[in-house]
Amino acid sequence: MKDWLDGYDAREWQTTSEGTVRYALIGLGWWTIDVALPAIEESDLGEATVLVSSTSEKAERLASEHDVGAGISYDEFHEGAASDSYDAVYVGTPNAYHLEYAETAAELGKAILCEKPMEATVERAERMVETCEDADVPLMIAYRMHTDPAIQRCRELIEDGFIGEPVSVYGNNSQPLLEMIPDPDQWRLDPDLSGYGTSVMDLGIYSINTARYLLDRDPVAVQSRMSSTHEAFSDVPDERSSAILVLEDDVGMVTTDSQNAHEDTELKITGTEGQIDIQPAFHGECTLHLSRNDVSVTVEHEEFDAQGEMREEFDYFADRVLTGGDIHADGRHGLTDMRTIEAIHEAAESGDVVEL
Amino acid sequence: MKDWLDGYDAREWQTTSEGTVRYALIGLGWWTIDVALPAIEESDLGEATVLVSSTSEKAERLASEHDVGAGISYDEFHEGAASDSYDAVYVGTPNAYHLEYAETAAELGKAILCEKPMEATVERAERMVETCEDADVPLMIAYRMHTDPAIQRCRELIEDGFIGEPVSVYGNNSQPLLEMIPDPDQWRLDPDLSGYGTSVMDLGIYSINTARYLLDRDPVAVQSRMSSTHEAFSDVPDERSSAILVLEDDVGMVTTDSQNAHEDTELKITGTEGQIDIQPAFHGECTLHLSRNDVSVTVEHEEFDAQGEMREEFDYFADRVLTGGDIHADGRHGLTDMRTIEAIHEAAESGDVVEL
Repeated sequence: MKDWLDGYDAREWQTTSEGTVRYALIGLGWWTIDVALPAIEESDLGEATVLVSSTSEKAERLASEHDVGAGISYDEFHEGAASDSYDAVYVGTPNAYHLEYAETAAELGKAILCEKPMEATVERAERMVETCEDADVPLMIAYRMHTDPAIQRCRELIEDGFIGEPVSVYGNNSQPLLEMIPDPDQWRLDPDLSGYGTSVMDLGIYSINTARYLLDRDPVAVQSRMSSTHEAFSDVPDERSSAILVLEDDVGMVTTDSQNAHEDTELKITGTEGQIDIQPAFHGECTLHLSRNDVSVTVEHEEFDAQGEMREEFDYFADRVLTGGDIHADGRHGLTDMRTIEAIHEAAESGDVVEL
Repeated sequence: MKDWLDGYDAREWQTTSEGTVRYALIGLGWWTIDVALPAIEESDLGEATVLVSSTSEKAERLASEHDVGAGISYDEFHEGAASDSYDAVYVGTPNAYHLEYAETAAELGKAILCEKPMEATVERAERMVETCEDADVPLMIAYRMHTDPAIQRCRELIEDGFIGEPVSVYGNNSQPLLEMIPDPDQWRLDPDLSGYGTSVMDLGIYSINTARYLLDRDPVAVQSRMSSTHEAFSDVPDERSSAILVLEDDVGMVTTDSQNAHEDTELKITGTEGQIDIQPAFHGECTLHLSRNDVSVTVEHEEFDAQGEMREEFDYFADRVLTGGDIHADGRHGLTDMRTIEAIHEAAESGDVVEL
């Protein structure tokens, strides 16, 4: 236990502590400015050198406010402006714009860290993977849970047999989107920008991807249902959604997600011999509740909120870019989530089991 | 808050404190002897006067050990033996035998408290309801969660709008049955005795019924999947199961249940404005985790384990029998669970949405 706690924050993925990756940050919403940018500033191997936004005025203003070297517009980015000043891009725009920035970055030979979900549709996500493979540039999808120490320790525990054989998984991710961003016309509610919908694309992806990462098992079949009643959700099918996902080796996963509900995130994995319950799981400080036989422990950890997770993620990405090492959450890993989410939407529409 | 805590154990259902209901207990497994019998002894309005088992020897021996007046065999019960000594029966046999004891009790004019699930099949459960209605004897299904003070307070909170509009429900009930009862030939794994299966019939019913009680909403459609791989489960389809239940007013409920997994019980109800998370929910001392806005409280309560819940249930039942009052969890209430469980099994077999 002492060793386990002392090694809790260990970066077992780390292979270098030398070098710097310089980033252009694309899409300057609150997540990029308030979470990603400070995370890069805190990181060991990263530096933000360029901000990219709709207008050069906005980009320059934010660059000046945050002590970043340059601010350029989207158009300037596509023309290759300031491309000597960065080695990699972080794409934090609405989903349906990811591909075009990845394409330009690939042309410019830059490494790409792209927010999840990868794109608005499977087809566009596939194009992103092909583009990056053809250009031979690193592509990583920004699954920040992978580098949260709590999640890494869970993965080790599961590999070590802590829960026995996994039996079931429950994931919930719900939040009151319209209280957080009081705008009914925001991009997450516009399928042209968000893709298949809002709750599964934006929230459910956390449960799905984190379960895949922890169990090293992918979904093979899904069933689901979803509905929208609030008028702000009239263009998307999933104000609320429920799904059953069968993971490899017959693990039965259920999920609920809503963009119009009380905030709660939980991921619970029950096995034949134990259980790992992560609550909160995806927002706030990841807290582990571990049970086996008749003993339960709760592991609280103060440091890793979303910004701490992003710092770890930027350093993991930089480590791989600097050393040319394999990236775990690469484009093909992200594609599996895109196909799963598409299947969940198909299943909700048809009422049928959709195989993957 | 002071009033709420001081009134936590309140029996708002109580209408009398006078009188005694004398019980014949039918089916003397560990639950009847170790939980139900002490619960009656602790209750205000109940008294165990007759024990009924496979042989008069076993019944007499247990009656003598536990200071109960008489012990008779199943055959003697059907012949009306000792029928002057009891006013009501508690039926705690394997599911597929419930009907025959209810039929005899109804003929004898006795009130019936029958364990859940009501019977092995919908058709037999319907016969039980008709038999009791024709004989005009009270029939209650033993849903012990209804009289747990924690559950009663939750129901009030939900009625008062604590969680806003309900959005989603998650229920899990899992246990390592073969460690608890190390016998691969036990009745819960024999569909002739248990009915449609084992995990949904025996465990899932807690999530389904408690959600119905708390939200006052019934399922309208289900989807599900289930599987069995362990050889002890070869005769039942649901060593593990997952389901989506759509409740009235579009509440999306998901459940997981397994008779071959680490013990865990949780029922979580998320609304537009708050959340009630009950964990543990169905075994051990029901613990409430209440959240609304940015505030969370945990309500721990030492007194109400399963025996405490059963004591409350016996007193509720006795109160209604003595006064002739309406019973909430009557046979028709139980029938809805039977139909829901049957639909979950049908849905798992077909892969289709099954409407209720």
